[in-house]
Amino acid sequence: MSDDALVIFTPSGKRGRVAKGTSVLEAARKLGVDLDSVCGGRGICSKCQVAPGVGEFPKHGLTVAEDALSPINAVEERYDRVRGLKPGRRLGCQACVQGDIVIDVPPESQVHKQVIRKSATERAMEMDPATRAFFVEVPEPRMDDPKGDFERLARALEDDWGIEGVEADLSVLRKLQPALRKGGWKVTVAVNDARDGNRPRIVQIWPDYRDAPLYGLAIDLGSTTIAGHLVDLTDGRVLASGGVMNPQIRFGEDLMSRVSYSMMNAGGADEMTAAVRAALGDLAASLAEEGSIGPDEIVEAVVVCNPVMHHLLLGIDPVELGQAPFALATGTALDIAATEIGMGNLAPAARSYILPLIAGHVGADAAGVALSEAPETRDELSLIVDVGTNAEILLGNRSRVLACSSPTGPAFEGAQISSGQRAAPGAIERIEIDPVTKDPRFRIIGNEHWSNEPEFGDPQITGICGSGIIEAVAEMRMAGLLDGSGLIGSAEQTGTLRCQPMGRTHEYVIHDASPDGPRITVTQGDIRAIQLAKSALYAGARLLMDEMGVETVDRVVLAGAFGAHISAKHAMVLGMIPDAPLANVSSAGNAAGTGARMALCSVKARRGIEQQVRRITKIETAIEPRFQEHFVAANALPHATAPFPELSKIVTLPDVNFNTGGGDDGGRRRRRRG
Amino acid sequence: MSDDALVIFTPSGKRGRVAKGTSVLEAARKLGVDLDSVCGGRGICSKCQVAPGVGEFPKHGLTVAEDALSPINAVEERYDRVRGLKPGRRLGCQACVQGDIVIDVPPESQVHKQVIRKSATERAMEMDPATRAFFVEVPEPRMDDPKGDFERLARALEDDWGIEGVEADLSVLRKLQPALRKGGWKVTVAVNDARDGNRPRIVQIWPDYRDAPLYGLAIDLGSTTIAGHLVDLTDGRVLASGGVMNPQIRFGEDLMSRVSYSMMNAGGADEMTAAVRAALGDLAASLAEEGSIGPDEIVEAVVVCNPVMHHLLLGIDPVELGQAPFALATGTALDIAATEIGMGNLAPAARSYILPLIAGHVGADAAGVALSEAPETRDELSLIVDVGTNAEILLGNRSRVLACSSPTGPAFEGAQISSGQRAAPGAIERIEIDPVTKDPRFRIIGNEHWSNEPEFGDPQITGICGSGIIEAVAEMRMAGLLDGSGLIGSAEQTGTLRCQPMGRTHEYVIHDASPDGPRITVTQGDIRAIQLAKSALYAGARLLMDEMGVETVDRVVLAGAFGAHISAKHAMVLGMIPDAPLANVSSAGNAAGTGARMALCSVKARRGIEQQVRRITKIETAIEPRFQEHFVAANALPHATAPFPELSKIVTLPDVNFNTGGGDDGGRRRRRRG
Repeated sequence: MSDDALVIFTPSGKRGRVAKGTSVLEAARKLGVDLDSVCGGRGICSKCQVAPGVGEFPKHGLTVAEDALSPINAVEERYDRVRGLKPGRRLGCQACVQGDIVIDVPPESQVHKQVIRKSATERAMEMDPATRAFFVEVPEPRMDDPKGDFERLARALEDDWGIEGVEADLSVLRKLQPALRKGGWKVTVAVNDARDGNRPRIVQIWPDYRDAPLYGLAIDLGSTTIAGHLVDLTDGRVLASGGVMNPQIRFGEDLMSRVSYSMMNAGGADEMTAAVRAALGDLAASLAEEGSIGPDEIVEAVVVCNPVMHHLLLGIDPVELGQAPFALATGTALDIAATEIGMGNLAPAARSYILPLIAGHVGADAAGVALSEAPETRDELSLIVDVGTNAEILLGNRSRVLACSSPTGPAFEGAQISSGQRAAPGAIERIEIDPVTKDPRFRIIGNEHWSNEPEFGDPQITGICGSGIIEAVAEMRMAGLLDGSGLIGSAEQTGTLRCQPMGRTHEYVIHDASPDGPRITVTQGDIRAIQLAKSALYAGARLLMDEMGVETVDRVVLAGAFGAHISAKHAMVLGMIPDAPLANVSSAGNAAGTGARMALCSVKARRGIEQQVRRITKIETAIEPRFQEHFVAANALPHATAPFPELSKIVTLPDVNFNTGGGDDGGRRRRRRG
Repeated sequence: MSDDALVIFTPSGKRGRVAKGTSVLEAARKLGVDLDSVCGGRGICSKCQVAPGVGEFPKHGLTVAEDALSPINAVEERYDRVRGLKPGRRLGCQACVQGDIVIDVPPESQVHKQVIRKSATERAMEMDPATRAFFVEVPEPRMDDPKGDFERLARALEDDWGIEGVEADLSVLRKLQPALRKGGWKVTVAVNDARDGNRPRIVQIWPDYRDAPLYGLAIDLGSTTIAGHLVDLTDGRVLASGGVMNPQIRFGEDLMSRVSYSMMNAGGADEMTAAVRAALGDLAASLAEEGSIGPDEIVEAVVVCNPVMHHLLLGIDPVELGQAPFALATGTALDIAATEIGMGNLAPAARSYILPLIAGHVGADAAGVALSEAPETRDELSLIVDVGTNAEILLGNRSRVLACSSPTGPAFEGAQISSGQRAAPGAIERIEIDPVTKDPRFRIIGNEHWSNEPEFGDPQITGICGSGIIEAVAEMRMAGLLDGSGLIGSAEQTGTLRCQPMGRTHEYVIHDASPDGPRITVTQGDIRAIQLAKSALYAGARLLMDEMGVETVDRVVLAGAFGAHISAKHAMVLGMIPDAPLANVSSAGNAAGTGARMALCSVKARRGIEQQVRRITKIETAIEPRFQEHFVAANALPHATAPFPELSKIVTLPDVNFNTGGGDDGGRRRRRRG
């Protein structure tokens, strides 16, 4: 009888011979099979559960005997009694190989598991976390062995886990001795090994075995809002999501006004840096509370943001980003202490990873979108538009990916709109205008019914959010309330008293409960703001299409927290995006945030996007004369030109002209970059 | 005629053929010759000066022609005119090889130069600084190349200097863009590459070429005083030296009382941490001022200290160091940001290196002494005693080195002595007592004359410093004013009215200007404090000698700021140190500080002491019963036993006994560790 046995692991297919008596966990390590373990084979963590096969395996030419694994032992019995072991499962650290066998490693026992995300359009995410927990027993100090507690811990990490040359910040070192003593010389440590040419680092330490996941934060730091997800680093699950306003808004609504604030006020950049860092700390605390965990259980944060926010977050004066050639101080991905960017409440030495910037005006948020949407993996030509205060635009396919950003301003987010507001309960998010009566009906966030339905009731109506204003403007155009230049007609011209004079122009009244309630209107100024925003967006997309030498794209992806709510039809009526088959216009939700989440869960994803960013061709809109041409040309609210059946209404857009030489400048006022 | 030429560099002897037209600097790089350059061959820095030889070189079988180097060019002429070039010197980056030649690299043009220290007993120091300056030209940003300024700088450092994967802290990144623009895309950067498994780091940046050395601090952080040297990192020269009291003294005079303070006061350790860090920052500022440089020109600090100070400096609660087994939180050498230990006023990303600790009671200060004195390089057996509040003791030779520390308390530093004071002008530092009249004469710091000489004048006499009290006690013993147990005799017993009653014991009056001036005496309590201190010191030394199996040592080195001032004769009369030929007792000054300076100047020295510390055998005095035995046995003030002619007086020490059953306990009270 042979002294060793054949072990075949599925689904990896890795196989090899091991000495009989070898534990399944040891066999997996020896054969390079991805089998998780936190406790290092002490029968505590149960991460190494496997499903051994018994019987015939014709594919492998193998018959596995009942006794190919050692019988269930006391540790497994106890574990099953106390916590329950799924039928057919064994603890890989306890079960020993006694004969040829096929062993399946279920996804939850793999460190680098594939996590299928909910939406069918989203890609599977591979877990490859930068920070992992390790349970170690540390030899007690002895008078005759003067090595420090840390040195003995480092040695144990090397011996048990093969982690070499581990370092610890002072913040961790000061917790070390109490933790070791409280845990009876057993501790669980979180080790970050992001492999960027530096040594692995202990970022947190707990006494004894810690039976809980490590957590991370994925943060999308926008000019207007800061959105964050609290993520389980074991499986990528989102425990809590939340957002706060970016407190820098008080220094300027758009990026360029913040750059100006910095240029015109000594210490202005530092003020803005302090404000955004404080907000990040607060966001981390509130997400931890919502997720019912301690903030110090968060071991990592990944941030995506545009270049100006990036520099302000890092404490770098963004002045160079306000003028050609828009030189970044640094654009590569950064791996720094989370305390350095305001999150001093996380694990003591928690790290933060900031995705690479693409160019002076195309940020880490665009890199997040590129990571999440991966246009380079498709044959079809994708146009990906992340709509925010700045729009990040990507165009590409397998052969080539282009990127630019376009200064849309905050109008799409409901800011600088007279009745505008953030997307929150009470905000009008959808609207239809009857082309005959010119009367609107609408829906508000938090209410499933249209305003003309009895079930709508009498809710509080507070304003219009970004998607609502886009629909309002498009519907006004379709109902003949706007002419092709964007001018609102008078009551006389439009035949509805909802068009009221307002100074030298007009406004359209959507809802009027005055004097006791809100009066919600769309003013001529609102129309102009939306025209400017949509022209900028369209011009950016067209610029990339010129560069790519195409007149159409195969698919359009609307990304951004707000992009998810935009009606593709209305966006196309407005001319926000180039024409494409409506069926091929999809929403990717907050793709930048998703990219942050992917980078949070996977070092491989970080290295991937770092490489991809170097391959992306950057187009600078600010100095490109064609951008200005496209911008001016896109200002009108056009007739539809493409024969899309879904948009049959568009071809009947009324060809009216309300211009009577009044006070409106026809939307030709230029926006400042921002 | 050949296209290449033979180049022989002296003193390295490195040789090889290079293409004619190659600059001497390029030839040196190609052949691995250590030739300095900061400006990278731009003819700015003049660090690459060489002395070409002309004529016959029989040793090399070479005749060097007059035109073996290219003629002096415009850059060299200009340099000579403006700044002066020594006769026979050429700029290595300008002079090109035209024929076979011998080129001498003078010491000042070597990065790794040997610096001979002043004292003949001290070892030569090899410069191998962790932080070096590099001048680089950085390509300007272009709109069509979206790489950040930092990425272009990093690329230039790699291309010009072979420095790969350089990193920069945020504190440097925020200075980068202004520096590049102010310097016209030329900057001088200080790069720390201490090669500890992490990437090299930019620690400071200056616009354009910076024509000045980099500076470092060597700090000896003692329990009572903090001493620092400001050092030129080019040649190891000390520009300024200074010291401050350790502000932790207010929490406890000795280490153990500070540990107690931490145990008994919540936040006590943090308070002490803040105090010592503030003192380090202040010391750095004052040394910079004394050296007439900006604190931000200091790019590195090296610290030596005992384990309790080490932990308190790092913000680690020292409680474990107060009880067996005296477990260190960490003992390996540390390379951390200087800001983390209070020196936020140095270069923005200045590093600090802390030497390794030897054991729970044997600190980085002892490692500094081990580095400086290097007993492992000698055949003779050296006993090295660093006298401070804690004495660090090393015993060893080529075969083996032992180390321990001994809790001498602050008496040797003049603390806990009734008339004691720090070594400062006005303090009695030397004293002689006439064996017949029993009258003293003394010298004070700041006055060259003895008190019985007319030139002594009428200076202010303020107290007795450490070396003074040692001499006073030894002289009192030799003059028959003390008996073998350390008891001061009465006026009647000693025959001098200078022995005055003081409670149930006596005191010896050295100087009495009361009521208008000081009254300086040695009390029975002072004698007991010195006895305890010297017994602890002696017992530690004896313990190591036991371990080594020897009864005598070949040489004794008294180290420590204070050790330099101790009279070897008096120390031996007191029984502070084992008997050794007086000629073989030397002073090493502040050897721990010297070790810090060596580590500051040389990465090789750091790696060397890190290895050596692992080889040193540590002896823990606190739990060693023989230490207690030696301690008790050493309490007496013995007769001299060794026949040293220099100490002929000792054999005639009066054999008196003043014990009359009075109040003194005979010095058998035990000291607490500290």
